[in-house]
Amino acid sequence: MLNKLDVHQDFAEVAKKFQNRKASVSKEVTDAVEKIIENIRENGDGALFDYVKTFDGFEISKDNLKVSPEEFEEGLKNVDANYLRILHRAKAQIEAFHTHQLSPSWGIYKEDGVIMGQLVRPLENVALYVPGGTAAYPSTVLMNAVPALLAGVKNVVILTPVRADGKVNPIILAAAKVCGIETIYKIGGAQGIAALAYGTQTLPKVDKIVGPGNIYVATAKKCVYGQVDIDMIAGPSEVLVIADENANPKYIAADLMAQAEHDLLASAILITTSNQLVDEVNVELARQVQTLARKSIIESAIENYGGALVVSNLKDAFELSNQIAPEHLEVLTENPLEKLPLIKNAGSIFLGEYTPEPLGDYMSGTNHVLPTGGTAKFYSALGVYDFVKHSAYSYYPRDVLETFKDDVITFANSEGLSGHANSIAVRFDEKDDEKLEEES
Amino acid sequence: MLNKLDVHQDFAEVAKKFQNRKASVSKEVTDAVEKIIENIRENGDGALFDYVKTFDGFEISKDNLKVSPEEFEEGLKNVDANYLRILHRAKAQIEAFHTHQLSPSWGIYKEDGVIMGQLVRPLENVALYVPGGTAAYPSTVLMNAVPALLAGVKNVVILTPVRADGKVNPIILAAAKVCGIETIYKIGGAQGIAALAYGTQTLPKVDKIVGPGNIYVATAKKCVYGQVDIDMIAGPSEVLVIADENANPKYIAADLMAQAEHDLLASAILITTSNQLVDEVNVELARQVQTLARKSIIESAIENYGGALVVSNLKDAFELSNQIAPEHLEVLTENPLEKLPLIKNAGSIFLGEYTPEPLGDYMSGTNHVLPTGGTAKFYSALGVYDFVKHSAYSYYPRDVLETFKDDVITFANSEGLSGHANSIAVRFDEKDDEKLEEES
Repeated sequence: MLNKLDVHQDFAEVAKKFQNRKASVSKEVTDAVEKIIENIRENGDGALFDYVKTFDGFEISKDNLKVSPEEFEEGLKNVDANYLRILHRAKAQIEAFHTHQLSPSWGIYKEDGVIMGQLVRPLENVALYVPGGTAAYPSTVLMNAVPALLAGVKNVVILTPVRADGKVNPIILAAAKVCGIETIYKIGGAQGIAALAYGTQTLPKVDKIVGPGNIYVATAKKCVYGQVDIDMIAGPSEVLVIADENANPKYIAADLMAQAEHDLLASAILITTSNQLVDEVNVELARQVQTLARKSIIESAIENYGGALVVSNLKDAFELSNQIAPEHLEVLTENPLEKLPLIKNAGSIFLGEYTPEPLGDYMSGTNHVLPTGGTAKFYSALGVYDFVKHSAYSYYPRDVLETFKDDVITFANSEGLSGHANSIAVRFDEKDDEKLEEES
Repeated sequence: MLNKLDVHQDFAEVAKKFQNRKASVSKEVTDAVEKIIENIRENGDGALFDYVKTFDGFEISKDNLKVSPEEFEEGLKNVDANYLRILHRAKAQIEAFHTHQLSPSWGIYKEDGVIMGQLVRPLENVALYVPGGTAAYPSTVLMNAVPALLAGVKNVVILTPVRADGKVNPIILAAAKVCGIETIYKIGGAQGIAALAYGTQTLPKVDKIVGPGNIYVATAKKCVYGQVDIDMIAGPSEVLVIADENANPKYIAADLMAQAEHDLLASAILITTSNQLVDEVNVELARQVQTLARKSIIESAIENYGGALVVSNLKDAFELSNQIAPEHLEVLTENPLEKLPLIKNAGSIFLGEYTPEPLGDYMSGTNHVLPTGGTAKFYSALGVYDFVKHSAYSYYPRDVLETFKDDVITFANSEGLSGHANSIAVRFDEKDDEKLEEES
């Protein structure tokens, strides 16, 4: 029956709903993407412009590849003042949270004279990919741009495909405007990723490319990984709700469907201590889905990748959740904050009945670019830390180096690196020591 | 002439010495690696054991794939007490520096009742690849393992190929012992990476794989990126020395050669304000190289990827260095610490004449796993931060959510996500409000 969470007895069955949802990348896609990248590396602008004309139908040239100030102004006329205010408010909320992720350079000043530390420096050039097509996600512009800008990235540019008319969705322009991003390239697809990873005659190479895209974009990002940095390769979205017997089934049903509406591969799982709650959630699913625009997507996602698991206690629920490592975790229990110590793996955690996941997609301030498909075991929510790099520095006085001299020489020789040993040894050459003595 | 730094007039020429040193990965290698990964995903242990037998000649089975406690003991008999002491000292130095990279979870407790923050949690399972072959690098074991262990990673395992006799180099065993690592799998190559990325009947999947390897290992790591996390894909090593006219040519020559001895693709560049210094360094190169075991490698690397550039002032030197973004940067100038603000892009920075780069390879405490080939523009030195992940959490009270209600609903609808809007709306349903009033 549609819109009904199957109740599973076995955790493994439920875990399967989360796993292997990634669309596998066919050899054809990989080959096509590799060819595009190679062509752009070799031929630059010429190849890039050809692809844009072929794939998007846009007659692109050096002169029209950026959104012009006039186009910005024109587009923004279609965005009302209230919507702009909402974007500004969301940006302020995201900034307020992400500011806490800024970490300073630091230094140690030891009494023996050794000075060491770590510089934290922003990346300089970051490109944000924004998908074209029918649905526009200005929230994703904010979620990617705000941490980059807070980190201190000087040049944040947007990369987005357009149609033959060369127009960018006004609400994307509005989000860019709110973030102060002035450069928007009308270029998308694998060709856009390749162009910014390697640079062309017109487009300067960037240091990092972030943002979601279709399978060609995702594959291209993986191919250029190492040439530039990239963010995670996003998979389909998912929510796991942990609820006790007092949780509100109406809210749970709404939140499961908010996730399920993303796409056919979205997953929505409920783990609860109450059989009755599952029944009540199912009643609410059937009722509420009737009112939703994306009903058929929701029904399909819930049927294929939805599920419920009844456990005997909440501790078990959190243990299972940690094994799944969901992108979004809602904790609809009593004293939800006290459950944080039980959580190891989750992209973003929503505590209590008035912190629904969609609040986090837009306004709570936390980031909505999150690890999916179990990768929360090792990946983090996107943050300021993704737009800085760390360099170590060290300064040793001569007498301290001397105390390490013999050990470093022995260590280096054990690895067959006599040149390394020599670099230490020459600094304590007898002739030099005599010279030092003369000088003193 | 060998061992002579060519003096270039043009920065672009020098920059070229750094760029494009990466061995390009042939289609044959990629195809072979992809086949191995697929086979291991499908057939697990069986395929893995076959590859180990074929590639390494080691008759592997479930019973002998780990180094046994007896083998550990036996191997360690070949390591003298002084060497163990040196390893312990290096580990203590690395720990002392990296401890400063630990960052706590944090929380904000706003007066309106909103609570938000970020959990910092260690990864649970990390594999460290250690190359086999003639040269063993126990220092690399320390550099990878110490930050992982400090981060709180519970299971750190080593993955290393063996020969037919099934033995692991005693100094690798010693480094593992010093770090408290007990699990060493006698498995290497692309098959080892695939086995730990996907798991087999015998080997549990890990969350992250770090450590250097040959082109098959590096390619396999890139292929499994996303399935597990990986560290950077390391390229050939490099040093850039910035020196003023008072720098000691003997030390500079020694340090350039310490880098050049790594391999034929290593790069060693001097940027200085003094023509005379270049001449003096060349004299020293020619003299010192005669004493070094890896003379021919050094000569070739210096010839192909060495170079000098004379600039009119130090500010220019740092600007050029930032464009190159070297793995190692030595600052051999007066007041080297005061130059830190000029440095944007460098993996690790060595200040003053008694902080030679090889000190950092072993004993200063900073990490020697560093971004190469210009990737210091966006990658960091390996650190504790590579072995943790961040999860956001948020808790909103009802009345604060209410202040965001209309804006989130408008925002969600603008993105075509009425299910998201519904998730907010149901929480302020009139019927519920009545119920709340009754209760109060």
